[in-house]
Amino acid sequence: MASPVLPSSGVLSPLGLDAVRPAPGFWGDRIALNREVTMAHCQEWMEKEGWIANFRGGVPRRGREFSDSEIYKLLEGMAWADHPALPELAGIVARAQEPDGYLNTRWRYARYTDFEWGHELYCYGHLIQAGVARLRTHGEDELTQVVRRVADHVCARFMETTETCGHPVVEMALVELYRATGVERYLEMARRFVDRRGLPALADIEFGRGYFQDDVPVRQAKVFHGHAVRALYLASGVVDVAVETGDADLLKTVEAQWESTIARRTYLTGGMGSRHFGESFGEDFELPSDRAYSETCAGVASFMLSHRLLLATGDVRYADLAERTLYNVLATSPALDGKSFFYANPLQVRVPAEPLDGINLAAEGGLRSPWFTVSCCPSNIARTFASLPAYFAAAEESGVRIHHYTPAEIRHDGLVLNVETDYPWSGRVAVTVAEGGTGSISLRVPSWAEGATVSYGETRRAVSPGYAVAEAEGGWRPGDVITLDLPVISRWTVPDARIDALRGSVAIERGPLVYCAESVGDQPPLAEVVVRPDAAVEHVVDGAVELDVKAALISGVPTGWPYTAEKETPDEEPITLRLVAYHRWGNHGPATMRVWLPVDTARTDRSRYLEEV
Amino acid sequence: MASPVLPSSGVLSPLGLDAVRPAPGFWGDRIALNREVTMAHCQEWMEKEGWIANFRGGVPRRGREFSDSEIYKLLEGMAWADHPALPELAGIVARAQEPDGYLNTRWRYARYTDFEWGHELYCYGHLIQAGVARLRTHGEDELTQVVRRVADHVCARFMETTETCGHPVVEMALVELYRATGVERYLEMARRFVDRRGLPALADIEFGRGYFQDDVPVRQAKVFHGHAVRALYLASGVVDVAVETGDADLLKTVEAQWESTIARRTYLTGGMGSRHFGESFGEDFELPSDRAYSETCAGVASFMLSHRLLLATGDVRYADLAERTLYNVLATSPALDGKSFFYANPLQVRVPAEPLDGINLAAEGGLRSPWFTVSCCPSNIARTFASLPAYFAAAEESGVRIHHYTPAEIRHDGLVLNVETDYPWSGRVAVTVAEGGTGSISLRVPSWAEGATVSYGETRRAVSPGYAVAEAEGGWRPGDVITLDLPVISRWTVPDARIDALRGSVAIERGPLVYCAESVGDQPPLAEVVVRPDAAVEHVVDGAVELDVKAALISGVPTGWPYTAEKETPDEEPITLRLVAYHRWGNHGPATMRVWLPVDTARTDRSRYLEEV
Repeated sequence: MASPVLPSSGVLSPLGLDAVRPAPGFWGDRIALNREVTMAHCQEWMEKEGWIANFRGGVPRRGREFSDSEIYKLLEGMAWADHPALPELAGIVARAQEPDGYLNTRWRYARYTDFEWGHELYCYGHLIQAGVARLRTHGEDELTQVVRRVADHVCARFMETTETCGHPVVEMALVELYRATGVERYLEMARRFVDRRGLPALADIEFGRGYFQDDVPVRQAKVFHGHAVRALYLASGVVDVAVETGDADLLKTVEAQWESTIARRTYLTGGMGSRHFGESFGEDFELPSDRAYSETCAGVASFMLSHRLLLATGDVRYADLAERTLYNVLATSPALDGKSFFYANPLQVRVPAEPLDGINLAAEGGLRSPWFTVSCCPSNIARTFASLPAYFAAAEESGVRIHHYTPAEIRHDGLVLNVETDYPWSGRVAVTVAEGGTGSISLRVPSWAEGATVSYGETRRAVSPGYAVAEAEGGWRPGDVITLDLPVISRWTVPDARIDALRGSVAIERGPLVYCAESVGDQPPLAEVVVRPDAAVEHVVDGAVELDVKAALISGVPTGWPYTAEKETPDEEPITLRLVAYHRWGNHGPATMRVWLPVDTARTDRSRYLEEV
Repeated sequence: MASPVLPSSGVLSPLGLDAVRPAPGFWGDRIALNREVTMAHCQEWMEKEGWIANFRGGVPRRGREFSDSEIYKLLEGMAWADHPALPELAGIVARAQEPDGYLNTRWRYARYTDFEWGHELYCYGHLIQAGVARLRTHGEDELTQVVRRVADHVCARFMETTETCGHPVVEMALVELYRATGVERYLEMARRFVDRRGLPALADIEFGRGYFQDDVPVRQAKVFHGHAVRALYLASGVVDVAVETGDADLLKTVEAQWESTIARRTYLTGGMGSRHFGESFGEDFELPSDRAYSETCAGVASFMLSHRLLLATGDVRYADLAERTLYNVLATSPALDGKSFFYANPLQVRVPAEPLDGINLAAEGGLRSPWFTVSCCPSNIARTFASLPAYFAAAEESGVRIHHYTPAEIRHDGLVLNVETDYPWSGRVAVTVAEGGTGSISLRVPSWAEGATVSYGETRRAVSPGYAVAEAEGGWRPGDVITLDLPVISRWTVPDARIDALRGSVAIERGPLVYCAESVGDQPPLAEVVVRPDAAVEHVVDGAVELDVKAALISGVPTGWPYTAEKETPDEEPITLRLVAYHRWGNHGPATMRVWLPVDTARTDRSRYLEEV
């Protein structure tokens, strides 16, 4: 089955790309753009930067020590998308493999001399994931043979050592290759990589061993910490190992870590990683908007992890976070033309970014860039979007569950369903039975959707967050329609009092979308705006819903030393502030932006405001 | 004259270490401890880490590429302190110098191959400052000869090139060597280093050229930016060049940059540098408490810069900032025993730091460390404390000005003054004339000191912030006393509304001291406290004033997803919160800490609170 994750057990089973086919719509359009535009864009930049030439050899090597992995992520995306450029690119990679299976353009003459920063096993991980994708969409070929040799080399070299890689990903890759091939030593190798981490297995570094999750064994950690992408790839691999080895305690451990992370270390967008320094999770409640790192790749990794936990447990909360991440991190990174990307996804930009020509040396947010010195995010988007339909729905014993709503055809067990919806812009989802069958059809009701209703046949009832389970006595017949109505209306959101960075501020959400103010057009300076959280007025612009809220422009702010004995009540001029969906911001050139908006405390105190709403 | 800065013109002239002799007291004790304990501590660690052995040669080199500079800063401190260990240590350095004057233990076989990160000119800068100190306290010797050869080598090598160093400091050092020797090419070399910066002179890097202030020429920059220590050392050198070349426009440019930086990029403590990433200034109003970098060395550099601007302009605002920095950054870094140091000086610590054995690989705050992998701060404290009395007072045409109050004897133009005070704990400063003379005696009245009075002879009058100028017709006679009474009482401070990180919070200050809550003894969890900014109750503990304020402990904070639709009014239990002077925190083991305290908005809104106070 064409799915990036195929556990051998779990409450839910994936439906693959063969079973979920998106039609034009929010995600269908993006998936098509990804295949038609983004993949070629990535390949062109990899050629231009010499990262593909590194495999051809004969020229001085270019790119960072992990640049091989970008080609592998693109290959994975191409495999899911059945992209015609795959065979040639895979051939270039294949010819660089050494007789014993070793394959790395940076370290071939100094194999395994730097586990902290060398990324050799990390690169293998992405290569293996590409091979798994190829096996599941096409079957054996040159690429899958390369991958089998790599995996066998890894097992031979590392099965009996105490070594591991500074950057996890090989763990989840090896488990998936085990699932795809049945070769049990791949699972055993993954299990050992998980277990030896934190003993410790790596040297101490300036960022501390916590940077690569080597400060404490996985089973003892209470929360995700250190480098966010590393932490979330590792956790994904741990779930995979736990599921395949039947280790219920280990699965519970990751669930508890996830729960703590969601409560204390996650942005409203679902983004993770509060620090540019070390690209890491911060401490509990350290969630600054302006310096939010919220790396696109951490969003990808969190999305992968949520999906694994959802499949294993069937708990809807994982799908809820996946949706939040999908619409507010993954959808945000690529520009509308699919050719430039956010690396970091901050929730506030104070100073408009300066446009760059060509490659971006840094990860700073504010403007999307076509390519980066460390260009992990574009190819990560490419491979994730290419496999995205496999995340939309899943099977359970009694039937099918739909988790993410976008126009698509879904097939399961003889049943063919057509999903029609304008989601996330509006909340009506119509599921029409095209070919009949049996079993329940469960539609996810997001946690914010108090007041949703579902109707089909003679039934019309209110449904609570969780799943709206529709069942048809005697089975579903062609033409049957299940309609889910989700209350996609704007709502004000207040942060936990312990998040110092957000004190005195509110945000607006609408359905799964976080909104933000962007300084385009005739918007006021965002640093001098306070909002009055009354009802927002909706406008449709270019097919997207924008919101007008009541606000005030503060003037007469003091100059000079900014810490004073008395709070002056500033002058205020009432204005209207336009808010746009966060994932759409930054498509009109350099601008400032903020998700969290200070509440107008001069008029009255915040809590009273919120009671009024 | 034994002063680290001796401009040839300016509104004020320094009084050197020969003219200002501290007695036991707040600063006298610290200066003595620095000479007796800290210097030996630094030298021991430099031996242990092999940084001194690098000069002896014959062993593999150890330490970072700039470790030579630590020995030089210690030598500077030893020179100011007339420390007996200086000649031997200087001899070790001298023997590593090459015949053409080149001297660097890292790059001797690859001279000047990496201007971005090599730090060769940076190391020279600190060596030259040591030589200047030796010239002014002792006269010519082996060290000063080494320094002259280095400076001549620099002029020969760099006068006609377009190169400069990734880390400024050589600029201010060369100007001071010009001042100490009269050799004009040193000034010309400094002027050229300043002018070629930002053309640009260096390669682009991941942090961007702004990291080392090479993105824009100094004359065009509007605010201090990039790596804070680099920015502030550079600005100090620019002031020196401006003063010696009579470039009034250039001086005005730095004054404007300083003004913008103070209004928008400076912590309540005077600390500078909002980001761990790049150790840099943030953007305007980006001033998070928890991730404040506020490096000790940036405090030292800011203190040096303020002093230069004060001497050039006589404007008291520079002395005000210098005092804030002195009491809340410089006094904070070293432990009370002088043997461990804060590198970063954050204004909030959420999680108690874990004690480290030995060297600290990182710069994280929370606990002082005896030594660091990058150990710039201990030796920077050592040299600054050794020369500190030279910053306390200055001469002007009409007499003497005293800027910082601590027990000391001050001599100027025949006049001998004894300063007695318990400052900063109380506000009475008594200046007794020991030997008579003429001229005005001006006492600085800090900007926070509304309601101060001065009295001498028959005079008793209120004085506004600025200077209290005392003049005696017919001159001062032995036994005359000038008494300044500063209102050293606690006061609540409110942040500029544009500082997002501080919204809804207040801090307490008392005299020049910033206060903080520290989780020692039976203090409540600081993350769950809100304060009621009423009058504080004072207690004297170990000679230091501590403050009790009314607060409330919040309970029933939500768990789970931290962004919710409704603000629940939490339960509150009234408590008393103990606050201590910020510079004294962290001396009782691992603890949490916060300077800015959330205001209890449940009771009433913040502005009303402040009116009540």
